[in-house]
Amino acid sequence: MDLSDIINGIKPVDPDWTSQARQRTAQLVMPARALGRLHDISEQLCGIRQTLEPTIKRKAVLVMAGDHGIAGEGVSAYPQEVTGAMVQTFLAGGAGINAVCRHVNADVFVVDMGIIAVFDENTLQNSDRLISRKIAPGTANFILGPAMSTQAAEQAILQGFQIASDFFSEGIELIGTGDMGIGNTTPSAAIGAVICGTDLADMVGRGTGLDDEGLARKRDMIQRAIDTNKPNPENGLDVLAKVGGFEIGGIAGCVLAGAYHQRPVVVDGFISTAGALIAHAICSTVTDYLFAGHCSEEPGHRHMLQYLNLNPILNLGMRLGEGTGGGLAMSIMDAAVGVFKEVMTFAEAGVAGKE
Amino acid sequence: MDLSDIINGIKPVDPDWTSQARQRTAQLVMPARALGRLHDISEQLCGIRQTLEPTIKRKAVLVMAGDHGIAGEGVSAYPQEVTGAMVQTFLAGGAGINAVCRHVNADVFVVDMGIIAVFDENTLQNSDRLISRKIAPGTANFILGPAMSTQAAEQAILQGFQIASDFFSEGIELIGTGDMGIGNTTPSAAIGAVICGTDLADMVGRGTGLDDEGLARKRDMIQRAIDTNKPNPENGLDVLAKVGGFEIGGIAGCVLAGAYHQRPVVVDGFISTAGALIAHAICSTVTDYLFAGHCSEEPGHRHMLQYLNLNPILNLGMRLGEGTGGGLAMSIMDAAVGVFKEVMTFAEAGVAGKE
Repeated sequence: MDLSDIINGIKPVDPDWTSQARQRTAQLVMPARALGRLHDISEQLCGIRQTLEPTIKRKAVLVMAGDHGIAGEGVSAYPQEVTGAMVQTFLAGGAGINAVCRHVNADVFVVDMGIIAVFDENTLQNSDRLISRKIAPGTANFILGPAMSTQAAEQAILQGFQIASDFFSEGIELIGTGDMGIGNTTPSAAIGAVICGTDLADMVGRGTGLDDEGLARKRDMIQRAIDTNKPNPENGLDVLAKVGGFEIGGIAGCVLAGAYHQRPVVVDGFISTAGALIAHAICSTVTDYLFAGHCSEEPGHRHMLQYLNLNPILNLGMRLGEGTGGGLAMSIMDAAVGVFKEVMTFAEAGVAGKE
Repeated sequence: MDLSDIINGIKPVDPDWTSQARQRTAQLVMPARALGRLHDISEQLCGIRQTLEPTIKRKAVLVMAGDHGIAGEGVSAYPQEVTGAMVQTFLAGGAGINAVCRHVNADVFVVDMGIIAVFDENTLQNSDRLISRKIAPGTANFILGPAMSTQAAEQAILQGFQIASDFFSEGIELIGTGDMGIGNTTPSAAIGAVICGTDLADMVGRGTGLDDEGLARKRDMIQRAIDTNKPNPENGLDVLAKVGGFEIGGIAGCVLAGAYHQRPVVVDGFISTAGALIAHAICSTVTDYLFAGHCSEEPGHRHMLQYLNLNPILNLGMRLGEGTGGGLAMSIMDAAVGVFKEVMTFAEAGVAGKE
């Protein structure tokens, strides 16, 4: 299977199922659409799954991890070895995403899409939760040239696609995307600026906590990377190769897999949405199957969401990544399904309608 | 116990516990406060409970129900008998609040604070979930005079206080307030306009679905009620008596009980927040113990929240009431507690901090 097979296999959501779901919502014993976004969510799930009894019981968050050549340029407040250390923390169950996923009853898996660290599988905690697809030990520094070859970019997307496809075929009903990679708000901002056409001033933020000087340097690095590489905004693979990252490619693959298999995917924040932008540039129909978990504090995120026409479920001032925003939103999606399936109709409840 | 005993028993949250909680947050293996509002929530809970290990496992939503004399004036899109019919639907488990509470593992109880309907306890489903504190079968039409006597207003508050106090003493750790009462956005808007000093044009909305004509009539009724009764904005009891409702008084009592017993209370939307405004006018310290579950689509709600300086947890375009917004927010509060207690520190995870 290559990218063109995937693109050819993706169909828009059937509006008939969404419309049938809206008719069911209209019968629920409450004023018309009184639970707002919860109705939109359940109806989109009905459309995606072509059913009036959608289920999202089995859930997984895939934390895609990768390192970045640009990290050496002082674009992050944290040292690069934190990527590998955090992967170990995810496996040990001690990170933010683990707490969130315990809460929403989702499994956490970590995918090594291309981190520098090499682990000793014999001493690694919960190594069965680590999926190794290391394309290379980090991308190249994209100020000097492309972050990766076009072949590596396609490989990253196809690996993400395959992993998500395997989860769906094993019965996972909802996948959340997550990310780990020191420096990865930098390629994400580059992708956002190129694809959305947004000014760098609006797209580049402080990431994990840059000061003013670091922010200016980061913006300058991204401008240089775009000037040097001239990514083609119409070509998602080209953008990924020139200014992206391995984990971002893996996320794009997950997004494509949801659309291809007609399963919902919920993206997290800035980095995950950069992955969604790559997937959207490859096949714009993916957004039919996509949910935006939250709006991040990273200022460029809302521009990305607007470009994709996605309305975020939560807005809690979060900016951690790891998949935490998407994971937390799964709870709201679960409630939406509960309301859709469990609330009585006016007729069942014997309640009079509007006068 | 009377209102002055309650007021004298309410103390501000001890800032030392909140400050200790902030120190713990700063050690979690993530960039500083990267989970935004989740940290604020967990730290407020630490302050309220005076612990660094807060729990909100046992949860209940109290749906306060009452009827309104004003309902005869065409201020609602639904007939008045819907109040009693919906109470039966809550008991049968078929309403929006039931689905939401199943999702967040909260118990639903319905309190008859003053509805017109009289039930046959022998045929009522799940009558153990109904708490009968009927002050009167509906308020008086407040265009003509006060909605209730000052004595009845105090009784409504004290009944709500007592019910919530009993739940807390039985081990409930978080109470959500809910409401049911055809016409009750009208007294709520009146309370909001009087206490917040907001223009009626901004405070009065379409409720369950008024058309333009109905909206104009509703605004006119509220103006007449305020002109006739001249409620004193400094006196919560006076406002409740003149332009309030029994269920709104019950909600005010719940809010006071949270503060008195140092337990968290999460309010729902427009009607619950009107109850919080009454409680706040009686004792402004109550907001230390209060969470706003969501921002309602009812346009006046955000003015109420601003007045109380409460930042809503969710913003999902909901406008159902029943306690659904507060109930749904319990899920985010649970996640906040999970993050606070379960995420490793940098030291525990062996991860390097900021460079």
